[in-house]
Amino acid sequence: MVEHGGTSTVAPEGGIGQAARRPPLRTMLADAHSGMLLFGITPPRQSASAEQVREIAAVTVARLAPLNLDGLVLYDIDDESDRNPVRRPFPYLPCVDPAVFHAEHLERWDRPVIIYRCVGKYPEPELRDWLRSADPDQILSVFVGASSRHKTVHTPLSRAQELRREVRPDLLLGAVTITERRDEHLRMVAKQAQGCGYFVSQVTYNVDATKSVLSDYFYTCRDQGIPVRPVLFTLSVCGSVKTLAFLQWLGVDVPRWLENALRNAADPLAESYDQCLANARELIAFCRRLGMPFGFSVESVSIRKVEIEASVALAGELRALLS
Amino acid sequence: MVEHGGTSTVAPEGGIGQAARRPPLRTMLADAHSGMLLFGITPPRQSASAEQVREIAAVTVARLAPLNLDGLVLYDIDDESDRNPVRRPFPYLPCVDPAVFHAEHLERWDRPVIIYRCVGKYPEPELRDWLRSADPDQILSVFVGASSRHKTVHTPLSRAQELRREVRPDLLLGAVTITERRDEHLRMVAKQAQGCGYFVSQVTYNVDATKSVLSDYFYTCRDQGIPVRPVLFTLSVCGSVKTLAFLQWLGVDVPRWLENALRNAADPLAESYDQCLANARELIAFCRRLGMPFGFSVESVSIRKVEIEASVALAGELRALLS
Repeated sequence: MVEHGGTSTVAPEGGIGQAARRPPLRTMLADAHSGMLLFGITPPRQSASAEQVREIAAVTVARLAPLNLDGLVLYDIDDESDRNPVRRPFPYLPCVDPAVFHAEHLERWDRPVIIYRCVGKYPEPELRDWLRSADPDQILSVFVGASSRHKTVHTPLSRAQELRREVRPDLLLGAVTITERRDEHLRMVAKQAQGCGYFVSQVTYNVDATKSVLSDYFYTCRDQGIPVRPVLFTLSVCGSVKTLAFLQWLGVDVPRWLENALRNAADPLAESYDQCLANARELIAFCRRLGMPFGFSVESVSIRKVEIEASVALAGELRALLS
Repeated sequence: MVEHGGTSTVAPEGGIGQAARRPPLRTMLADAHSGMLLFGITPPRQSASAEQVREIAAVTVARLAPLNLDGLVLYDIDDESDRNPVRRPFPYLPCVDPAVFHAEHLERWDRPVIIYRCVGKYPEPELRDWLRSADPDQILSVFVGASSRHKTVHTPLSRAQELRREVRPDLLLGAVTITERRDEHLRMVAKQAQGCGYFVSQVTYNVDATKSVLSDYFYTCRDQGIPVRPVLFTLSVCGSVKTLAFLQWLGVDVPRWLENALRNAADPLAESYDQCLANARELIAFCRRLGMPFGFSVESVSIRKVEIEASVALAGELRALLS
């Protein structure tokens, strides 16, 4: 879903912050805590040299260290051009496998990671081997199904979910939630029945729609007598009209008033930053009032340095808001 | 659009508050000020005795006096059952003509009124006479067209607008705006071209949709080089599932999360009151940031005493917010 997120050249110093250490991500999600904060990145492009990949990993870890994150989200990028006939505003470029990137390059990242798996890309034996090897204290996963019905897949989503239950039931599995969809709460309940223990939203800019899905999900769980699982809201700043177009291409519903504001803003990055923060405040207040477990993940869908830096700053402010 | 709003029996003492007197409503709207606060009421039912009508007027004026309002909105109720095939949750009962109610019973109300006119109800000579007699310093109007295409009308909206331009161009005319509609900003611009100098929204609970219409309207005015006219947002508390059903029957889009909250709340009136206040804060911040002139009108769509009292309390809090 995102372009890769590590391009700048100077790595600030500093280890991973030790202040206010919370329980491990797995515990917080399994026990339906609130206040988790993650950061989402996309592994480097496959075309990058080994040296470049190493540098990107180092820069990324250094940049995120001061944030006291509960974990990292590693996206698995698939060519989703079959999903949307409109031309992709940023070109699709194959990226390093997120599991490989984690295993081989993120040795300095000592906190948990949520590794996305576009399961259709992987033959079943490969997926099984990975599940067997994954340390459930450090690795969580989100399985993503095919982007359209017409796509040829190696392993369908339902089979991948089965496989996890067979091979590695203690690996905490999550699912994507797309809060723009009217009946999304029913899909969430169905995914939960397949073993998903938490949800990660697509980038959300329409807080009203997000609140409606959360509310429908919350009351459906209550009515069905099933536990409410945590939702991690994904926020992403939007620094230009091109980034806006990419968000919309991805299916993100940007309210018209916000689209107008971004198009007319002298500084769209500052405008979107303020809006992300306002949205976070609104979602925090809403979830606390409802009694809904929640957290956030911040990502930059663009590789522009100013947008990445604004994302890191946003995560910093969220950490303070959540404390 | 509303049931009548004055039923309780004990009238608190007190004249119209003199504190912080602002320019007259006409000036504030004509000069595109912000911060106007009005209260909307529906005249008593036609079946009420002369004595009851007098009492309702006295109670209403006494109740609203402490609010330091900029004016009163007097609704003109029409049978809109042709507009919606679903059964009306509250029965339609003909009400006293708002112009008659104002002329004959509101002598103790010394501030301006916005008199709604469902123009299709009135033959042209009657409308002309009323326009001739209206004092433009005290009376403003909102013309409302037929509720459906199939309704037989005495005077079409376009003819009523023409009549005002011919007979009483100095009577400040407004129009209803329904912010649930996608292309509403284009309708607003068209109404403005017909002489409308301000807008009054339908009861608004979907702030996101309202912000989108405002934003589209604001930027369309800017692009066309025409002045931006003020919008008065109508807020109404909702104290019961029956009131909620009535709001929805009227076409008010209540976001799903809010509908869920109201249905599940121990005290839906308190829940809706808090939400109205939150919505007001959000609209104030949004309009100030955009540079959009705005004000509020509060009404109670229900005749229950607790809902009327909550509406008065809401107007009181809005007065403080707007100061």
